[in-house]
Amino acid sequence: MYEKCVALLSERGVELTDIAQCVLYLQSKYHPDVKEDEILAVIQNVIRKREVQHAIITGITLDKLTESNQLQDDDLHAILINDYSLYGIDEVLAYGICNLYGSIALTNFGFIDREKPLIIKELNEHGHMCHTFLDDIVGAIAAAAASRIAHHNAE
Amino acid sequence: MYEKCVALLSERGVELTDIAQCVLYLQSKYHPDVKEDEILAVIQNVIRKREVQHAIITGITLDKLTESNQLQDDDLHAILINDYSLYGIDEVLAYGICNLYGSIALTNFGFIDREKPLIIKELNEHGHMCHTFLDDIVGAIAAAAASRIAHHNAE
Amino acid sequence: MYEKCVALLSERGVELTDIAQCVLYLQSKYHPDVKEDEILAVIQNVIRKREVQHAIITGITLDKLTESNQLQDDDLHAILINDYSLYGIDEVLAYGICNLYGSIALTNFGFIDREKPLIIKELNEHGHMCHTFLDDIVGAIAAAAASRIAHHNAE
Amino acid sequence: MYEKCVALLSERGVELTDIAQCVLYLQSKYHPDVKEDEILAVIQNVIRKREVQHAIITGITLDKLTESNQLQDDDLHAILINDYSLYGIDEVLAYGICNLYGSIALTNFGFIDREKPLIIKELNEHGHMCHTFLDDIVGAIAAAAASRIAHHNAE
Repeated sequence: MYEKCVALLSERGVELTDIAQCVLYLQSKYHPDVKEDEILAVIQNVIRKREVQHAIITGITLDKLTESNQLQDDDLHAILINDYSLYGIDEVLAYGICNLYGSIALTNFGFIDREKPLIIKELNEHGHMCHTFLDDIVGAIAAAAASRIAHHNAE
Repeated sequence: MYEKCVALLSERGVELTDIAQCVLYLQSKYHPDVKEDEILAVIQNVIRKREVQHAIITGITLDKLTESNQLQDDDLHAILINDYSLYGIDEVLAYGICNLYGSIALTNFGFIDREKPLIIKELNEHGHMCHTFLDDIVGAIAAAAASRIAHHNAE
Repeated sequence: MYEKCVALLSERGVELTDIAQCVLYLQSKYHPDVKEDEILAVIQNVIRKREVQHAIITGITLDKLTESNQLQDDDLHAILINDYSLYGIDEVLAYGICNLYGSIALTNFGFIDREKPLIIKELNEHGHMCHTFLDDIVGAIAAAAASRIAHHNAE
Repeated sequence: MYEKCVALLSERGVELTDIAQCVLYLQSKYHPDVKEDEILAVIQNVIRKREVQHAIITGITLDKLTESNQLQDDDLHAILINDYSLYGIDEVLAYGICNLYGSIALTNFGFIDREKPLIIKELNEHGHMCHTFLDDIVGAIAAAAASRIAHHNAE
């Protein structure tokens, strides 16, 4: 399932190195000397968690079904294709990831979700595609990895 | 959107009176004299919340797409059609509802999700249909309503 | 209990108008024309919730006991007096408030907790006092109020 | 900090074997052949998590200050000494533990918090002591351990 999740992310335009850039964005102020290799290893561990994998597969499936007009529910289609700002199920899925990594992960997610840097910004600019769930999943994985690094560096 | 959600629940075999029975199951020990009318009004208020409506529509859409073999992802299809016990995104959506109603709602949900009484049991026995999300959504609405009643009765 | 909570906040240096400034900080980009009166009314409603009141009283009690050296646990005292960055119970209490207001509130909280604007910054600079819980409670009330305003303005 | 937490639990009447009994209570239906040794090792790992340790120390400190009449806030004292049913901060702390272990942990906690078996029952019957936070912390550690066992046994 791990390989499938990495492949799914890549198919949708997100490489693990893109997520690593987001982790650097979140962490550089606190731990400027963390190496990209180290960050990639932490990201891989996050994606090895079963609950994270389920969030990735469920969210990307909803994005793809929306994009190809196969959701079979017009209201949900309109909400997802427009990334309606008061729809919060994408964030609920993201919190399902962050919660596994504690309170720092949740705070990091809130920050990155407002700032939308790097790949998260790019995902939001792909007008003809639907990344309503993916941008939050990427933010959540980055936030989780940054939290893990903060805890490790304190030990 | 409220009418649509009530219609969707009904189309999938769940009437508001079924949810009211679950609320009675949760609450009767603490507030035995709460009337069904009162409970129904509280359930309706829960379903009037935008975030609850989004959870209902998203979850039932996933159930229906699974049932009609239109998910386009074989792994997710296998997980949802079998209600795989370690898949937790259905519970994550349910917590998204319960969290809006505080800690009593979360505790109530955990209890009803283990006990699976009444309509929740029936949904789990419909072998040819997929109610992976719906049973948790019903449990969450009932848990939320029971929490609201507990808070109101203390005032 | 409402009056007590407002008085407790004031005693610790936080007026409702300070929280209103934080709400403006969070919301002005999206709803620049919301009036301060309207914001204050929303903040008051947030503080009228029983679970919010319990978080306020519990958090401020812990801050005050720390400040006056009465916690009776040296490890917890050291953690709270230094606002140890990997201690997350203050954020856990804050999420207990935000969760009641949905996913936008959680995102807003993460943002304001990283940025630490206005009164939240001032609380963090009171070297001789302990505001480990209070700054997060203020952020959570502001985030909750901003979320409520976003939902109301969409109606 | 691990040793301190185990000692604190023991000082308040809770041995790790008591928590293991709660895990057996939660898990025996699903994994009847899990050995007590294995369960104890999982419980120890849960208590080795920094966020779990912070919840234990914070909750037990509040219980002890209540018991010895040193909270300095009459309203909070009355709430905690009576384990007021609508006070939810104890559950909020417990969710802070459970969230780290995913959705199965949360469901397990809701169930055990309603059923109050074994040591949790005993804690609730100590009339002259205050275990408002401790009973939820014990339930949360047991629920977290049971979730971990469920995930491990599936691998």
